[in-house]
Amino acid sequence: MENLINKNILKIKPYEPGKPIEEVERELGLKNVIKLASNENPLGSSLKALAAIKRNLNTLNRYPDGNCFYLKNKLAKKLKLKPGNLIFGNGSDELIDVIIKTFVGLNEEVLTSKVSFVEYEIVSQANNRRFRALPLKNFKYDLMAIKMAIRKNTKAIFIANPNNPTGTYVNKRELEEFLKGLPKNLIVVLDEAYNEFVDVRDFPKSLDYINKNVIILRTFSKTYGLAGLRIGFAIAKPEFIECMNRVRQPFNVNLLAQAAALEAVDDAAFLSRSRKTILDGKMYLYNELEKLGFGYVCSVANFILVDVKQDCRIVFNKLLKQGVIIRPMAIYNLKNFIRVTIGTRKENIRFIKALKKVK
Amino acid sequence: MENLINKNILKIKPYEPGKPIEEVERELGLKNVIKLASNENPLGSSLKALAAIKRNLNTLNRYPDGNCFYLKNKLAKKLKLKPGNLIFGNGSDELIDVIIKTFVGLNEEVLTSKVSFVEYEIVSQANNRRFRALPLKNFKYDLMAIKMAIRKNTKAIFIANPNNPTGTYVNKRELEEFLKGLPKNLIVVLDEAYNEFVDVRDFPKSLDYINKNVIILRTFSKTYGLAGLRIGFAIAKPEFIECMNRVRQPFNVNLLAQAAALEAVDDAAFLSRSRKTILDGKMYLYNELEKLGFGYVCSVANFILVDVKQDCRIVFNKLLKQGVIIRPMAIYNLKNFIRVTIGTRKENIRFIKALKKVK
Repeated sequence: MENLINKNILKIKPYEPGKPIEEVERELGLKNVIKLASNENPLGSSLKALAAIKRNLNTLNRYPDGNCFYLKNKLAKKLKLKPGNLIFGNGSDELIDVIIKTFVGLNEEVLTSKVSFVEYEIVSQANNRRFRALPLKNFKYDLMAIKMAIRKNTKAIFIANPNNPTGTYVNKRELEEFLKGLPKNLIVVLDEAYNEFVDVRDFPKSLDYINKNVIILRTFSKTYGLAGLRIGFAIAKPEFIECMNRVRQPFNVNLLAQAAALEAVDDAAFLSRSRKTILDGKMYLYNELEKLGFGYVCSVANFILVDVKQDCRIVFNKLLKQGVIIRPMAIYNLKNFIRVTIGTRKENIRFIKALKKVK
Repeated sequence: MENLINKNILKIKPYEPGKPIEEVERELGLKNVIKLASNENPLGSSLKALAAIKRNLNTLNRYPDGNCFYLKNKLAKKLKLKPGNLIFGNGSDELIDVIIKTFVGLNEEVLTSKVSFVEYEIVSQANNRRFRALPLKNFKYDLMAIKMAIRKNTKAIFIANPNNPTGTYVNKRELEEFLKGLPKNLIVVLDEAYNEFVDVRDFPKSLDYINKNVIILRTFSKTYGLAGLRIGFAIAKPEFIECMNRVRQPFNVNLLAQAAALEAVDDAAFLSRSRKTILDGKMYLYNELEKLGFGYVCSVANFILVDVKQDCRIVFNKLLKQGVIIRPMAIYNLKNFIRVTIGTRKENIRFIKALKKVK
């Protein structure tokens, strides 16, 4: 067996997803479980997107358009870019794999921060690439330390902005200082999965940097409420996109995801309702957490990293028994922290009520 | 730019998909175009599968179950296997990537046949793995030659059975002879995407071999009529599956694909109607092709490789102008061959009519 498996693979610590609602209900015999564990949009999906899915059911026997023609054109117009600036993936997860394969050679490394999206490491390992991560500073990406740590073989730097699981962000000034004078042979990936929730003025306008060696990752899984369909995209200069297209699977984005996203990008009302729900919920949760005497990290995303001042796995289990799924942060060595996704008003109230019993 | 891109990537000749119907209609200003280019099920999809999609629209804001729990259990029961024998992918395409990453080391090679599914080569290249392909013999995989050609660093042998684009198959006796005495440190992948269309008695019962180092690939894209949703699966011993699970993306199979497949596996009536359509269509096409004086390769799948006795690109374009999309085989160096997917009776008649004008 050992000499059958590519050795690197055995080092991978598999990704631990947030527990699905039905799994918890099945295992614990509970009903009405709420999930605040995977930073999903609590309002569901755009009704226009769902209508588009229904309209396309009669073509599911056909392969999807491998070029995402209509979606690419519409989104390019919306972002004031060219279609050649865009590539779509089976979630932005797949595009992490595509970026590493396209830009990082076998003896080259991926550099990022600890306590960030775990897929950067998992995908690097699965691809036999070197991986290095530096500590956060005050729960934030330490861009200066990362810049100092660049080696000759550093080929891609992943910056989750806002960062998951901390909810912090690097601002325009910090990012511009970081990008200034970087070696020409490396790629900076700005993973902006939570971009649409950001409510601060000094957040970088990342599209301004794609004439540099910058690749932006975005997704329809969060604000757009389409996590179940798996569709994300990358924005970069056309030369980069062209190479990435060689690497991705030819039919990587399913037909219904394309149809739904095509409508979702236009549903401004749904987006603004989603944003308002998150911003209102954040204020409510900040306030309640303070009353309870818990610490938290200020977030510009749709989740909050909470210092529960006791073993997070115990808190996780106690909340689970009350039908509330959150994410314990022990895997990040943040043993007293949980990450809670901001839900609907009702869900937030239920979370706080459950948390009070845990205290 | 050159020192930014991983060199191997630039060697990749991108996959050329069958032209989508809407693209042809858009480009040529045609209506009622028919596509016999991508080996899709001409009957559409199981209505039960489509109903399941509608029932699940209200949960699209949630990530899919990364473990495909319900589908895995149901399919395992159906195949008389354990859930641990199964892994699902974003089409079986993704699983080719997972297999290569899991089993083939960096200096090891993938071995297969020429004139077979092009993704074996593309995915090997995208992963910096060595790739070697031997010629077909009478349009069939030459298993004896492949066995003789195994080197010390050969790690995975891909056998498309039935083969695409030829429609030929290796039979039980040939496969068993091939498997006998193979080196213990290599994997044999039986890619059975077209398995459900096979109508010959000596086709191998591949499930009998998974106690060996055999991995079987199957898909919901063909007989099950769900190509647009992207879902395929692999069958192997649990130790192999466990390693492959480390490598795949955590949410690789979208939620609607899981819901639809769960119903599709039970829709025996749809499957048998699909099979009958293909078998009847095959007889019709064989007969008409003979009348026209064209050669063809006998097929056990839902497509036929046809010797049109002139430049296939010219035939492709002439058929396209009549609104019939087929696949020219020039990329395989089969300059006088096209591959036509068996369609509905109406589509087959239209193809033959269009072909007559080309002759």
